[in-house]
Amino acid sequence: MSSANSAAIDIVKIDLGERSYEIRIGTGMLDDAASYAGLPSAAAAIVTNTTVGPLYAQRLLEVLRRRHRSVDLIELPDGEDHKDWPTLNRIFDHLLAHAADRKTTLYALGGGVIGDMTGFAAACYMRGVPFVQVPTTLLAQVDSSVGGKTAINHPLGKNMIGAFYQPLRVIADLDTLASLPDRELRAGLAEVIKYGPIADAAFLDWLETAIDSLLARDVAALRQAVRRSCEIKAQVVGADERESGLRAILNFGHTFGHAIEAGLGYGKWLHGEAVGCGMVMATDLSLRLGRIDAGQARRVTDLIRRAGLPMRGPDLGSDRYLELMRVDKKAEDGEIRFVVLDALGKAGMAPAPDALVRDVLAAHAD
Amino acid sequence: MSSANSAAIDIVKIDLGERSYEIRIGTGMLDDAASYAGLPSAAAAIVTNTTVGPLYAQRLLEVLRRRHRSVDLIELPDGEDHKDWPTLNRIFDHLLAHAADRKTTLYALGGGVIGDMTGFAAACYMRGVPFVQVPTTLLAQVDSSVGGKTAINHPLGKNMIGAFYQPLRVIADLDTLASLPDRELRAGLAEVIKYGPIADAAFLDWLETAIDSLLARDVAALRQAVRRSCEIKAQVVGADERESGLRAILNFGHTFGHAIEAGLGYGKWLHGEAVGCGMVMATDLSLRLGRIDAGQARRVTDLIRRAGLPMRGPDLGSDRYLELMRVDKKAEDGEIRFVVLDALGKAGMAPAPDALVRDVLAAHAD
Repeated sequence: MSSANSAAIDIVKIDLGERSYEIRIGTGMLDDAASYAGLPSAAAAIVTNTTVGPLYAQRLLEVLRRRHRSVDLIELPDGEDHKDWPTLNRIFDHLLAHAADRKTTLYALGGGVIGDMTGFAAACYMRGVPFVQVPTTLLAQVDSSVGGKTAINHPLGKNMIGAFYQPLRVIADLDTLASLPDRELRAGLAEVIKYGPIADAAFLDWLETAIDSLLARDVAALRQAVRRSCEIKAQVVGADERESGLRAILNFGHTFGHAIEAGLGYGKWLHGEAVGCGMVMATDLSLRLGRIDAGQARRVTDLIRRAGLPMRGPDLGSDRYLELMRVDKKAEDGEIRFVVLDALGKAGMAPAPDALVRDVLAAHAD
Repeated sequence: MSSANSAAIDIVKIDLGERSYEIRIGTGMLDDAASYAGLPSAAAAIVTNTTVGPLYAQRLLEVLRRRHRSVDLIELPDGEDHKDWPTLNRIFDHLLAHAADRKTTLYALGGGVIGDMTGFAAACYMRGVPFVQVPTTLLAQVDSSVGGKTAINHPLGKNMIGAFYQPLRVIADLDTLASLPDRELRAGLAEVIKYGPIADAAFLDWLETAIDSLLARDVAALRQAVRRSCEIKAQVVGADERESGLRAILNFGHTFGHAIEAGLGYGKWLHGEAVGCGMVMATDLSLRLGRIDAGQARRVTDLIRRAGLPMRGPDLGSDRYLELMRVDKKAEDGEIRFVVLDALGKAGMAPAPDALVRDVLAAHAD
């Protein structure tokens, strides 16, 4: 709210030519008018959910009303099981009923589900309107709000219907993490931890020393975790916006994780929980493929355990796991392509024999 | 099928940097393998409807099976009233049930509705798969298959949910126009006629001499009409892919036309019929705004009449017309922006007083 706060803001730039934008990370940002300087001033609509809305929507409404001619509020039901077409269509219904034009800016206020759905709505409404990410969960601040992946789920697969569509800005106010349930904090840490093994061994070292501070919500530690995560993601996305290659490494643990989410039905496990368990599996697969050694695997697995994330997958049966993984977006010609570790700080893509995948599942799923 | 056919193909290039592609116009192209040379060879799926499918799908299947590992066929119900989410979702259901990956190429075989829906499905499926347009109606060959506008309708407005997403190629086989019902031929001529008044006075001159040959389906005349229409559209789209300015002139007659379609319920009038009548209204509006004279207006209107297009709009009441036009995608801050003629061969955007629009509606709607 004060210029002192503005001065303490970290800025990470996503370099994508004319689609470049900033991730602004700090405290006191949500209702600081400076956070929104330079954004469009035509009409706006805030999309949030019934959990986050009561906490923060009023503050965002007030600050946005100072710059936008009109600001609508659209509140969706909370949860991954609502990341579907009928709920997305509630955004379109509202915008059309209020004659929102294609200069209307959408603000996504919430976690990953709200960000993904609002982004996809922005990509499609009148073939594209501007949007801004205001992530209020750790997972959204370090991962889903950054990089322009937007989507809804289909009963047959997670994030199957979507678009690459970049926001104008990401405003990550660390203060909003104070209201986050412990379970969601831990789920967010899964995506933070991910960046170490796939891209930055030094960050993995740091996480091993900082994990308890992060769990205690130490703001300095959270700031460092969010900033470094965004820097790594910015670098990867800047090199491969549409995931034709490198970007796929950001899906470490996600092939197994998506199968867990789809197999159980969306919303049973949090996305980050499924990714945490999926990283345990993907790490073990990397070990069994001979790409890393047991000591390296143990460091990754121990960190996931210390974050309080689930270490064992649900009992779907390995046939069902394999079936679900074959519709993963990284699959080609029916062959599942896994993100595997080649070292601590280095990931790549590899197929794996079904038998080996079954061994992994037998070891890590009930 | 023969090299003689291939030699007689006209090629119009759409210049959009890395998204550039060719429109190939000619005869005998649908089942000529040369038409598809250079396209991806992974799996493919043809999306068509229950009217066009029985006529051409088998021939397209056969030629595509020579280059693609597998080719699926997805047949949707025919008509603008099916250009909606449930029908679009049938494409996703099919692709996911068959584990189609993100290298799968979608072929749109049909008219404007099939092209718009297949293109939007391609834009969204796994955040984007390649697609090819194989338009079989005059309207699709001269307009909707070119330029990357894809969409579905929303009960509150036409083409409200969509994306800019370019095909890899457009294959316009003039032979397919032989099976077109007369009503659809005339509807397609509305979009052909459009290009004269908005961009090319000489083309308007030519159309006045060629309209009877076009109605008689003279292939040489059709080829000339399709080629010149595509050239004009290519030029406009190349200059303004995402309709931030110039491209809007391609919507001449569409603001009134969309109101007719939405007001009656999609599918009652063909899109081209609504555009034809909409051009009569937009021409009269241009006259009443003092931008063209009565002689110029009459030339446009006479051509629309000679094409056998409806000259009078349905009785929706002018309040309803205005309400529907206010949600037009070109509207800003509730102000309707019309495409108007500044001369024969030159169009621009302009607002208009409601009273003047009501006069136009009183003169041209029952």
